[in-house]
Amino acid sequence: MNDFDMKARVYIEDTDAGGIVYYANYLRFMERARTEFFRRLGYLKPALFNGFQFVVRDVSVRYLKPAFLDDELSISVALIGVSRFAFEMSQEIHRFDERLVIGFVKSVCVEEKNKRLTKMPNKLFELLQSHTIQ
Amino acid sequence: MNDFDMKARVYIEDTDAGGIVYYANYLRFMERARTEFFRRLGYLKPALFNGFQFVVRDVSVRYLKPAFLDDELSISVALIGVSRFAFEMSQEIHRFDERLVIGFVKSVCVEEKNKRLTKMPNKLFELLQSHTIQ
Amino acid sequence: MNDFDMKARVYIEDTDAGGIVYYANYLRFMERARTEFFRRLGYLKPALFNGFQFVVRDVSVRYLKPAFLDDELSISVALIGVSRFAFEMSQEIHRFDERLVIGFVKSVCVEEKNKRLTKMPNKLFELLQSHTIQ
Amino acid sequence: MNDFDMKARVYIEDTDAGGIVYYANYLRFMERARTEFFRRLGYLKPALFNGFQFVVRDVSVRYLKPAFLDDELSISVALIGVSRFAFEMSQEIHRFDERLVIGFVKSVCVEEKNKRLTKMPNKLFELLQSHTIQ
Repeated sequence: MNDFDMKARVYIEDTDAGGIVYYANYLRFMERARTEFFRRLGYLKPALFNGFQFVVRDVSVRYLKPAFLDDELSISVALIGVSRFAFEMSQEIHRFDERLVIGFVKSVCVEEKNKRLTKMPNKLFELLQSHTIQ
Repeated sequence: MNDFDMKARVYIEDTDAGGIVYYANYLRFMERARTEFFRRLGYLKPALFNGFQFVVRDVSVRYLKPAFLDDELSISVALIGVSRFAFEMSQEIHRFDERLVIGFVKSVCVEEKNKRLTKMPNKLFELLQSHTIQ
Repeated sequence: MNDFDMKARVYIEDTDAGGIVYYANYLRFMERARTEFFRRLGYLKPALFNGFQFVVRDVSVRYLKPAFLDDELSISVALIGVSRFAFEMSQEIHRFDERLVIGFVKSVCVEEKNKRLTKMPNKLFELLQSHTIQ
Repeated sequence: MNDFDMKARVYIEDTDAGGIVYYANYLRFMERARTEFFRRLGYLKPALFNGFQFVVRDVSVRYLKPAFLDDELSISVALIGVSRFAFEMSQEIHRFDERLVIGFVKSVCVEEKNKRLTKMPNKLFELLQSHTIQ
């Protein structure tokens, strides 16, 4: 799982009048890849769990080169840290061998109802720990 | 209330690489105007009511002319029909005196939990009836 | 080509606070499928051609049942009419054997620069004609 | 200009099935505010200039508290640095006196055609310099 990535096509919905992918939409591609990462781990409904959910606490993104209409992108996910309350991922977006975007995303576990910080289940914590890159 | 409309600016998020507003995004502008129409009627949380919600059943849109980046749009709402279970609205999008888009939207009332058809509250039905264009 | 369809996953970006796919976002799925239909026909840059582009003139959509987070959707495209200036498609969105959405989309050919109506190239017209459902 | 901000309503298009504003959509609100900041400075077509444009190079966002449907948000912009090739802004999103989001955005000036780094016009550089917070 250290080299998880997914492919995604750039459709016209993703672009803007500057002729490139709109800067906020790279975060959509990044979330799709994180979701597929969890699905690969066996969580088939990974966006909203039972009673709790993960919400993004911190994002930082560096845009190196723009992506264009019809590009085929590859979005990677690497788990670089996990605690009982949070995990951190490093992500990149490539167009073949060109690196377009680098990002770091920290997500925290909150209760579904009131969005307060809560511990993730032990089983999930241990699973994430076992997939963290050293 | 027969002449309700709202203003909205076209930002770069609304456009696509063709240099115009992306066709699905006009439906966002139309929904914003419907929401503000309900807010004007006194419903301050108009997208999701208490236990029920309205979901769109039918949309038809004719795109006459494109909207461009930085345009100031005016989006109108006219209630043209209402029953216990549904209402129908006619909407237009203008850029000053140019008509860009014409649309019809039929929304039905469903239970929040299971999304099944349900009657809207009497008070709301009568209010909508009183604002329907003859 | 009479039975073209593509698969798409519902991610959290596609949903709204009502817990279902936001009504405008089905039009995104529909456009992705139209784009892949053209790609299948050999047009690898199908959203913006050389000097001309297709813009949607008319859309009508009937929402039969909502799609939910994590659903796997199948979006079909059938070409039902073509002229020198326009083509019309019938589209459906299914979740396995449940039909969720029916739509009709008419697109017209315009010059890229001034967005005025123009004839599509002969070669494309004949190709589309040969893939029109009788 | 040191205290520029704009108001924006949260519509259902901005939310997701978790019941909160989707994390990428805060970047849309932030861009709207940056655009209005430039409009206030006299640039009426601020997203795409004549021959050049600004593209985001770096974004970092901390999400402190979620925004919900129907919230009225206030999005601030403060120019904190400018060079011939780039500017940096600090932005915050508030719901009345609650701070929900903090962000930093660095944008660089590129040629419209090939997206290569280029100097911004002197007049714009000096204007931005005069509005930079010391």
